[in-house]
Amino acid sequence: MSAAKLLGVGVGPGDPELLTLKAMRALGEADVIAHFAKAGNPSHSRAIAAEHLRAGVVELPLLYPVTTELPACSDGYRDAIRDFYDGAAEKISALLGAGKTVAVICEGDPLFYGSYMHLHARLSPRFPTAIVAGVTGMSGCWSAAGMPIAQGDDVFTVLPATLPEAELVRRLSDADAAVVMKVGRHLPKLRRALSRSGRLPRAVYVERGTMAAEKMIPLSAKADDEAPYFAVVLVPGWEERPGGGK
Amino acid sequence: MSAAKLLGVGVGPGDPELLTLKAMRALGEADVIAHFAKAGNPSHSRAIAAEHLRAGVVELPLLYPVTTELPACSDGYRDAIRDFYDGAAEKISALLGAGKTVAVICEGDPLFYGSYMHLHARLSPRFPTAIVAGVTGMSGCWSAAGMPIAQGDDVFTVLPATLPEAELVRRLSDADAAVVMKVGRHLPKLRRALSRSGRLPRAVYVERGTMAAEKMIPLSAKADDEAPYFAVVLVPGWEERPGGGK
Repeated sequence: MSAAKLLGVGVGPGDPELLTLKAMRALGEADVIAHFAKAGNPSHSRAIAAEHLRAGVVELPLLYPVTTELPACSDGYRDAIRDFYDGAAEKISALLGAGKTVAVICEGDPLFYGSYMHLHARLSPRFPTAIVAGVTGMSGCWSAAGMPIAQGDDVFTVLPATLPEAELVRRLSDADAAVVMKVGRHLPKLRRALSRSGRLPRAVYVERGTMAAEKMIPLSAKADDEAPYFAVVLVPGWEERPGGGK
Repeated sequence: MSAAKLLGVGVGPGDPELLTLKAMRALGEADVIAHFAKAGNPSHSRAIAAEHLRAGVVELPLLYPVTTELPACSDGYRDAIRDFYDGAAEKISALLGAGKTVAVICEGDPLFYGSYMHLHARLSPRFPTAIVAGVTGMSGCWSAAGMPIAQGDDVFTVLPATLPEAELVRRLSDADAAVVMKVGRHLPKLRRALSRSGRLPRAVYVERGTMAAEKMIPLSAKADDEAPYFAVVLVPGWEERPGGGK
């Protein structure tokens, strides 16, 4: 008679109106709403869904350990993160074992670069799961910019700005359209890579797409190299084909 | 005093519950709902949004010319399509000129491989526009499959199956995760490219993700080479990193 179920629920890129009807229903039906945040910070996904949470619903904050003292590629960092996901999965497993429906709310889409997938991998072999697809952060960004991103037979690529410069140059040159994520302190390197690949003139820098504090500017017009971790750079494919409908 | 506005409204991958609250509001506020379809066929986007249309709302079907007698790369085909988009933009321009709000409803996300962008390019220089981002078809597919697609510093690529086999092999080998679109009659070639790039064991074939007639099967288990044009093949990046959280 258990209704035990794990739901990965995408809440979209930031604008609370970009929640789907299915996400709304999941929020209404779940016994427990779980959300990720860095320890000491508010949860982005909770902020997006806040106005749609049932009064008094049980919440389970999942707080990433603060690991700024460890380099991200170190064994220490990897161990801390793995332990964190193991612990989070155990807490949720206990709730599922008690017959609860647990909705993990996720910015964007749960299975596209989302933390939820670490829980999904651990729990889906043992419990029923369902995914509510969400509008991705990158869709939110190009929609806010009103910028067609890819069309027809375009090859479209998503790249992390963490890649080495030569690798960024190669991959940007090889794609018709691209989105570069995790910009942050990599912006000077990314700027050079965009310039070397001939993509700088059409690159657009976006911070907080679809949110109230949204910022967007052609990257070539951005005077400084300050960028938060979650900023993205869009490189539309459209402009390359003057015969493509313009 | 004109409320003239062109809205590109994403209605998501197929499940009517994957419409966003913002799309619902746009459908409620628009004077005219425009939708694309092939002449003689029902409109997919209209079918997705059907239950949310206001009774008696004015509709503007935009019917692609039937061009099966022309190869897609021919000048004749290109001319027919360009004339079609020119004509569609003129019809909408007349409505906008009369102060109407026109919502063009689009499967998936309007600016990601969508026909809407041909209207956007023609009309956005002259009229106010806004985009309502939608859940993409590919998000719908990997969510329906419960399959984490990309994570961490993965490079993710969207490829059309129309590319030559050698090009598919090269690009599949070079990406951590991939989605191949427009599968249709290219399935035998795509199968060979996936095999040559070592990606066949984790490739999943999906038809009509999130819709009632949804079909999904590991590609290696699919016995025939029958596939509709809109079928996709998902190649998740996750499996490659056993240290990645499993």
